[in-house]
This record gives sequence, C-alpha cells and structure tokens, in this order.
Amino acid sequence: MKFSELHPALNDPFMRSMTFLNEIADRHPGAISFAPGRPYDRFFELPALDRWFQLFANHAAERHGLGRDDFARQMFQYGRTKGIIHDLIAQHLAIDEDIHVDPESVVVTVGCQEAMLVVLLALRSGPNDVVLAVEPTYVGFAGSAALAGLPVLPVHDGPDGVDLADLEDRIRAARAEGKRPRALYVVPDFANPTGKVLSLDTRQGLLDIAAANGVLVLEDNPYRLFGDDDRRIPMLKALDRDRTVVHLGSLSKSCLPGARIGYAVADQEVVQPDGSRTLFADELAKVKSMVTVNTSPIVQAIVGGRLLETGCSLVEGNAREIEVYRRNRHVLRRALQDSLPADLTWDVPVGGYFVVVTVPFEADADALDESARDFGVLWTPMRDFYQSGGGAQQLRLSCSTLEPHTIVEGVRRLAAFVRSRAVAR
Amino acid sequence: MKFSELHPALNDPFMRSMTFLNEIADRHPGAISFAPGRPYDRFFELPALDRWFQLFANHAAERHGLGRDDFARQMFQYGRTKGIIHDLIAQHLAIDEDIHVDPESVVVTVGCQEAMLVVLLALRSGPNDVVLAVEPTYVGFAGSAALAGLPVLPVHDGPDGVDLADLEDRIRAARAEGKRPRALYVVPDFANPTGKVLSLDTRQGLLDIAAANGVLVLEDNPYRLFGDDDRRIPMLKALDRDRTVVHLGSLSKSCLPGARIGYAVADQEVVQPDGSRTLFADELAKVKSMVTVNTSPIVQAIVGGRLLETGCSLVEGNAREIEVYRRNRHVLRRALQDSLPADLTWDVPVGGYFVVVTVPFEADADALDESARDFGVLWTPMRDFYQSGGGAQQLRLSCSTLEPHTIVEGVRRLAAFVRSRAVAR
Repeated sequence: MKFSELHPALNDPFMRSMTFLNEIADRHPGAISFAPGRPYDRFFELPALDRWFQLFANHAAERHGLGRDDFARQMFQYGRTKGIIHDLIAQHLAIDEDIHVDPESVVVTVGCQEAMLVVLLALRSGPNDVVLAVEPTYVGFAGSAALAGLPVLPVHDGPDGVDLADLEDRIRAARAEGKRPRALYVVPDFANPTGKVLSLDTRQGLLDIAAANGVLVLEDNPYRLFGDDDRRIPMLKALDRDRTVVHLGSLSKSCLPGARIGYAVADQEVVQPDGSRTLFADELAKVKSMVTVNTSPIVQAIVGGRLLETGCSLVEGNAREIEVYRRNRHVLRRALQDSLPADLTWDVPVGGYFVVVTVPFEADADALDESARDFGVLWTPMRDFYQSGGGAQQLRLSCSTLEPHTIVEGVRRLAAFVRSRAVAR
Repeated sequence: MKFSELHPALNDPFMRSMTFLNEIADRHPGAISFAPGRPYDRFFELPALDRWFQLFANHAAERHGLGRDDFARQMFQYGRTKGIIHDLIAQHLAIDEDIHVDPESVVVTVGCQEAMLVVLLALRSGPNDVVLAVEPTYVGFAGSAALAGLPVLPVHDGPDGVDLADLEDRIRAARAEGKRPRALYVVPDFANPTGKVLSLDTRQGLLDIAAANGVLVLEDNPYRLFGDDDRRIPMLKALDRDRTVVHLGSLSKSCLPGARIGYAVADQEVVQPDGSRTLFADELAKVKSMVTVNTSPIVQAIVGGRLLETGCSLVEGNAREIEVYRRNRHVLRRALQDSLPADLTWDVPVGGYFVVVTVPFEADADALDESARDFGVLWTPMRDFYQSGGGAQQLRLSCSTLEPHTIVEGVRRLAAFVRSRAVAR
C-alpha cells in the first residue's frame, strides 16, 4: 500500500519528528539525553508492585466486602467501563487539590493519552468543530486531535502562559469562518515544553472567557506537584464554578508510567434528546468502550494501592521525587550558567521537567544529528511543538531522569556543540 | 451541553443498546444471564498473576540478559510502542497456527478493540473511504469504525459464513458510487453472534477476491480454539500469500480479559513518499502512540508468562477451557431441544460461545425487559448486530460463563417466557 493511502495525520510533522527522535536515540545509545519527558526512575523497585496490589486487595475486601473469588474475578474479567479506582482518584483530588467531584464523573483511562482522545472524539460532532490549544503544544494533544478529525487552532502563550486577548480573537475569528470552537487545551503548571505557570488572575480570566463562549477547558497538569516550593496555585478544575473544565488526569509522572493509568473528570451535564440528563463522563465511557473496552483492573489495582499507601495523597507519595526534581533543576540552571556562552538565553522555570534554551542557529534535525554524533548529547527541537512556525532556534532540555553529574557533563557537551555551531557561522 | 453536540456515533443504535443492556443487567442481578460474551472464569486464581509475572521476569533475564534494575525500569517506565511480548505472540502463532511472521510486524495493543480502532484510523485516508463487514457484525467493530469516521457496508453472511458473490457486488457498487472500500471485517471461526465457520474453499475465495480488489481482510478470531473437535481449518492469516490479511488478535478469551492485551499482525509493506518501505505495523505504532502511548508492560509481562507456561501454545494452555465450552454447548443444545417449543429453530454451532434462537415475536428491548423482570433470564437481541434491519425475531444466547445446571434452568425460564409470548399473540 502507499503511504498516501493512510491517515493524513501520519504525515504531520510532529509524527515524523517523533519517529526521527526515536531513531536518533537508538543510533546513539551512549549519548546523554535531555530529550525524554520521563519521570525519575531510580526509586522504582519491583516488590512495590505486589505490595500495592495487595494493599488494593485488602481495601477491596474491607471497604467493598469483596471475597477472594469475587476479587479474582474482578481482576481477571472484563470490568466497569469507567474503572474501579474512580473513588480513590476522587479522594486524591479532594485531599491534594481541594477538588470535590462525584466519583461517577471520573473515567479511568489507559493513560492521559486515552483520556485526551476519548474527550476529543466525544466532542467531534461534525466537520466544523475545531479545538484551540495554547502554543507551543504537547505533541500528544496535537496527535490525538488529528486522529479525532479536529483541527487545532493555536493560541499565543505570551508571558502569562496564555494570551487571553489572543484567545478571544481566535474564538471570534473561528466563528466568523463558520467554525465551532469546542475546547481549549492548556497545561497551567510548568507547561510542556515551556515550563510556564498561569497566575491565579490568568486562570480566572481564562475560565470566564471559556464559560462566556461555551468553550470547554481541557486541563492537563502532569507536572504540577513538582514545583520549586510547596505553594501551588489552585488547579483550573478547583476554580471551576460553571463546569467548564474537563480535567485530563495523568498518573504517569506521580505514580508510574508503566501502569498506563490516567483519567478524565467530566462532571458536565449532557441533555439527552428526551430531556433527561447524563454526565459527560457517561458519554465518554461509551466512546471508551469502543477504544479499549475498559482499563485493565490489574494495573488499576496497582495504582490504587500506590494511592492507598499514602492515604490517597500524591503530594505525600512524591516527597522524594519532588526533592529530586528540585535538585535537578537547580543543577541544570547552574550548569547552564557556568557552561553556556554568556550571550545565550534560557527560561528559568520554577517547576516541572523542562528548560527551553534559545540558540543562534536552527535547532533542527540536522543540528540534533550532529549534536548526538559529534558531541554525545540529545535534546528536543522546539519547532515540533509549533504548527505556526515558532521555536526554530530553540531546544528543550529535560532534566527529569538524569543524575547531577550527568546533567553537568551533558551541559558541558551541549555548550561545546553550541560553540562549534557559533564558530561555523 | 446538548447530546446533539457530541459525536454522532453516540447516537448509533448499537451504542444505545449497549447502555440499555448494561442497565437491564444491573436492574436484575438475580436473573440468569445468557448475555455476556465473557470467558469462563472459575479457573481464574489470583496466585497465577504473580507466577506468570515471575516467569516472564526470568525469561527477560535468561533470554534477553535483562538485570533486575533494568527489568524494574522496563516494568515501571514508558516503553516500546509496539510492545515487549511481540516475539512470544509470534511464537504462539507459529506453534498453534502455523503462521510465521516477523515479530516486528506484531503490534501489542490494549485488547483487540484498540487493534481494531488503530487499524481503522490508519486506513482512514479521506471521506470516500469505507469498510465492509460480514453482517451480523460484532458491535465493537461497528463502534470503532464509527469513531474512525469509516462507514460500514454490510456483506451477507449466508450459509457459508460470507456470501462471496455479495461481497463482489458490494465492492463494485461502492466503487460505482465513488467510494473506496479499504477492508473487509470477518470472524472466520464460530463468529460472534452466529457461530458460523468459513470452509477452506470459502476462505480461499475470500482471499482471492480481496487481493484482486486491493481490499485488506481484517481477521478477528477470538473463539477459534473452542471447537467441538480439535480439527481447525487454517486461519486466514495462515493462508495469506499476498499479505492481504491484517490479523486482529485477541487474548481475552484465550488468556484473560483483565490484562486488556490484544495485538495486530500487520506485515504489509508501505511505500513511503521517498520510495523507502516500512511495515504497516510501524504506521500502526504511530497511530497507537496517539491513542494509548504504549501498552502496560506489567500486564504484557503477565500475559507473556501465561504464554511461556505452556511453551507459547494456547491450545495447550486452554485444555480445561476447551472442555468446559464443549460441555456447555452440549448442555445448551440438549436443554433447548428438551425445553423449547418444538416449532422453534436454532442454529447448532460446532464451536464458540453463541447460539442464535429464532422466536415468533420481536426480540427487542421490551421483550428483554419482560424476560428479565418476569422470567429471570437475560439474552442479547440479535437486531443490535444488524444495521440493515435483520435479526428482529432472533436472540443470542451465550453459554460461556455458566455452569450446566444454570444453563438448564435458564433455558427452562427462557422457554416459559417464549411460551407466554406465543400465548399473548
């Protein structure tokens, strides 16, 4: 078959770049990689899997009176489409985030990625529907929107993390063209890739604009726990008085990616043709049943036990990780200051995994190839996060999985690469 | 929000009926249910999960030299998009089915449902693309096609399981309307819901027509192991000389549904714009990365261990289940003969989970409601499997999860219900 006979999303630049990034990493296994946005993994230990599973088994027996045979059946069989740890997730949101939702409005998904796709598919009512996304945009969102058949209209991020005037302009312009903006995608805390944070005022302004325009806010917030200090501005869902926010929950960074557990909080009311009302979560469940049927109860049990171990608080459950990321960002900032040419600029994020560096050359595939081959250091070109042509001379560094000495050595190599390019000009 | 502002697939009759079936089952927990197509679950035992996981851990150490820390990281972290048990699945296909494929052409998915959706999304190149499906059709296929934006054209099943003349007519008619038929969906062994089997001649004829027309065959074959005898006609993928078949693999019935592990075998070549060639499996992996990122390595390890335990043979691994299903079908056939009115007809399947009974009244939602409420027995209306209006007076019985005495009592209740309806006429 011909490539042109396949889904056009496969030809999107971010799809091609993803493949390319993987290939480069495979070709240079010895390179120090600032590329992947993966959680720190030195604390992962195999016995924890069984410990968490047993914790959940005990909870199922004590809290839900489930006998051994019934629990075995729950683990092995097909199960509830919306999942079996929805109540524990609701408890986590209440304890850590002061978000209080009916557990029935929580849909457990196969990672946050499935939550994104399911929400986007559910919202795709026809060919005039579009979504908005703060740009630069996480490629996983752009990808699922492309598969769902929803064009993505970029909104400037600007110094506040989202440019509210631009948001209003974009909604207005889209409507003028006969398009229907359904939702805005935003990462309010330590965004991927910029590390930006929305202030409380910006959050409230964003919610007001969304509510006034009948546009849902899709809040994705995987790095939120990992700030330089313990103060956290309320999540959009915590500020959501009009049920404007669908929260796309990730547990990959705060629990473990290998479980592939995420969730959507969708407490919006849907008015059925007969006038009755359902939860948006129940409509999402119908879509999910045609995507993955249900989420594996076995890995739900493991994540459920991980939650139970710290009384459903992931702030408490991530105490060690929070310290590691603070240390790593500190080391990275100092290394950049010590090693990079003085005329270079970079953002100083106060949380998350990422630092964006601006360089005096095209940070493209060729540059990355040379950086990996000749200098033994990998990073992510920022241009992959833009569809409107930004980020050409920027690169993203992730410090989440590295040890301090490797960060220092990696930045040393990066500085050598940047200097060689400056000379070559 | 209004229901009409959501994806039109949510309004498809099979989506609504699914919700309705679940509601009825919830309302009548004491009813004997012939409804769910679930595997027999009395052999499920919790210690097996850890045993299988350890088997896979040992295999990873011995076969791939993976140390304890590396294995922990493989279990906890993000992982290979195409999965980590692709080689074991390829071995199973070789041992049990005489199918020999490069493990690189195997994509491990979150159940067969994700394999379906990913293949359909990949094939959806534009608005003129359509797929064909033998009717009656498994609702999960109809659902994923609707989400992928691919209309489904029904093909008669007829006495041979697929009416080859009708298939050719449908392809021709679709082309005449400017449509592009991309693939045909078929369950060749003990189909859901009819229990029909395609003969070897029909399989070969089907492959010839598909190849001649550039239409892929999507083979779904979850009940294949469960025949009345041990002879099995070769799978379509085993007969596939022209790489016309994409095999949609399910392990829910042959291993365990709770792992949510399926796979696609996609060894087709894709010609890229620059003339280079990739495997269709690699294009599927790109789509999958935007659906669920990767399949949980933890549940892959459990299924991997289940495979390893019987040398990758699922025929051997399902010896007990094969006997149970043979016994249950036998009991169900005899109970139908003993209890149902003599003028009623039903198919006599030689394998699988399902028997279709034709009744002298509309087997619709009202009938099911009455059957559950007044007679304590649940079944599945066959009309849900048709989009062209068939099956109105038919119901599907599944005997896969019941014990013999429950089957006999359930048929007794069904007979009473049918007789009451006959009198009411």
